[in-house]
Amino acid sequence: MKYNGKPKTYKKDCEYTYTMGSFVTIELLKNQISKVEEVFVHSKYSAATRLLELCKDAVPVTFNDKIFDRIGVNQNNFTMGIFQKYTMKIDSNRPHIVLVNPSDMGNVGTIIRTALAMGYRDIAIISPAADLWHPKTIRASMGALFKVNVQYFESFEEYSSHFKSHQFFTFMLGAEHLLSYESCPQLPLFSLIYGNEGDGLDNSFLSVGTAIQIPQTNEVDSLNLAVATSIGAFTFAIKNGLLQA
Amino acid sequence: MKYNGKPKTYKKDCEYTYTMGSFVTIELLKNQISKVEEVFVHSKYSAATRLLELCKDAVPVTFNDKIFDRIGVNQNNFTMGIFQKYTMKIDSNRPHIVLVNPSDMGNVGTIIRTALAMGYRDIAIISPAADLWHPKTIRASMGALFKVNVQYFESFEEYSSHFKSHQFFTFMLGAEHLLSYESCPQLPLFSLIYGNEGDGLDNSFLSVGTAIQIPQTNEVDSLNLAVATSIGAFTFAIKNGLLQA
Repeated sequence: MKYNGKPKTYKKDCEYTYTMGSFVTIELLKNQISKVEEVFVHSKYSAATRLLELCKDAVPVTFNDKIFDRIGVNQNNFTMGIFQKYTMKIDSNRPHIVLVNPSDMGNVGTIIRTALAMGYRDIAIISPAADLWHPKTIRASMGALFKVNVQYFESFEEYSSHFKSHQFFTFMLGAEHLLSYESCPQLPLFSLIYGNEGDGLDNSFLSVGTAIQIPQTNEVDSLNLAVATSIGAFTFAIKNGLLQA
Repeated sequence: MKYNGKPKTYKKDCEYTYTMGSFVTIELLKNQISKVEEVFVHSKYSAATRLLELCKDAVPVTFNDKIFDRIGVNQNNFTMGIFQKYTMKIDSNRPHIVLVNPSDMGNVGTIIRTALAMGYRDIAIISPAADLWHPKTIRASMGALFKVNVQYFESFEEYSSHFKSHQFFTFMLGAEHLLSYESCPQLPLFSLIYGNEGDGLDNSFLSVGTAIQIPQTNEVDSLNLAVATSIGAFTFAIKNGLLQA
């Protein structure tokens, strides 16, 4: 469905989606203004100066409270940026984070935010997976989505066939290698690969690169996906100069 | 409100609360069975053997589908464990994680799960803060809540006055010290202190112990609270032998 000036509650088959809240809307305008169709502002939003400056001569701004009643996700959202979905390509000359079938939109958004914070700009997602363009995913990313490349692949094989120069690291429970700063490899190109929230990576991934486990006690079954991703991404980032510590 | 055999949708002033879903309910029974009032099982739950074994002679089990329609949070919950809230005390002889005014139940639950995974068993929470006993917090903890000590304090001063032997580390943006494996201290007793999701720790914490920043790019404002906590907790755990890497 194309944008016709009357935004509807988000659906996956819409060609457009939207940011909720001023922080994320400002990130959208700063980074992807060419995709923006229209910005809505609620009469309760008193600090709109920065937003209006960014929109000036480039994006129509509409003051309209009803739209927030109709599709506002929560009562604290006073701005909304309607924008066209777009496609991105991950860069073959940089390290990747690869999420295999992530199902939770909050996790995907949080991982994008963490990845950018750790110096990663390229995230591959293997379908089926949570919808990148759902307003909840965008919100959890705190707008980091607008500064990174996220590319979906139909299968892990499709991903791996494109990036043969990357060394693959699969994060799996029971793996032989424990993640540590000392043993973390230094490499020009690597992919940190994580499975889905419920089941992790299945055994078919044992033959894909090097399996790594994040050290943990036996008291819990596993780590939250966003937590596991952040610990792996942080350790590799520090060791490989993506971040200075 | 006391439990009268007819559970209601959770409210903060209830004396009881409940687990949703079999994984978390089994963790409740394994670790805190003396607090459990009753377990409800839906007719769609076919794998109840382990649950029934745990309840045997100790906890009444009621097969009742209506209760899930009435207070079930989502359609995939087929067990519910009603239990009395209880109070815990953190141990003065172990390291602590300290959360100052965390507001998000998912974050608090995830941090409890991560803490236990990293070898921490003592978590202080400074009020006002998210409700530990809300079913959403319990669920995000994946039952780790039933194996750790979580204690609320009215103020940070109340906390700090009780634990004068702990060395305090405050995680703050712009802090002079960057977190790293090499520089991470080795200490018998320490407290890792984190602020709330929106604002972090305010400047009054600059005089409390050592301020540390997690290395990150300038591309994002800050890290998600559960992510920041996990990176700090992991680094200190590895360096201080709570975990083997």
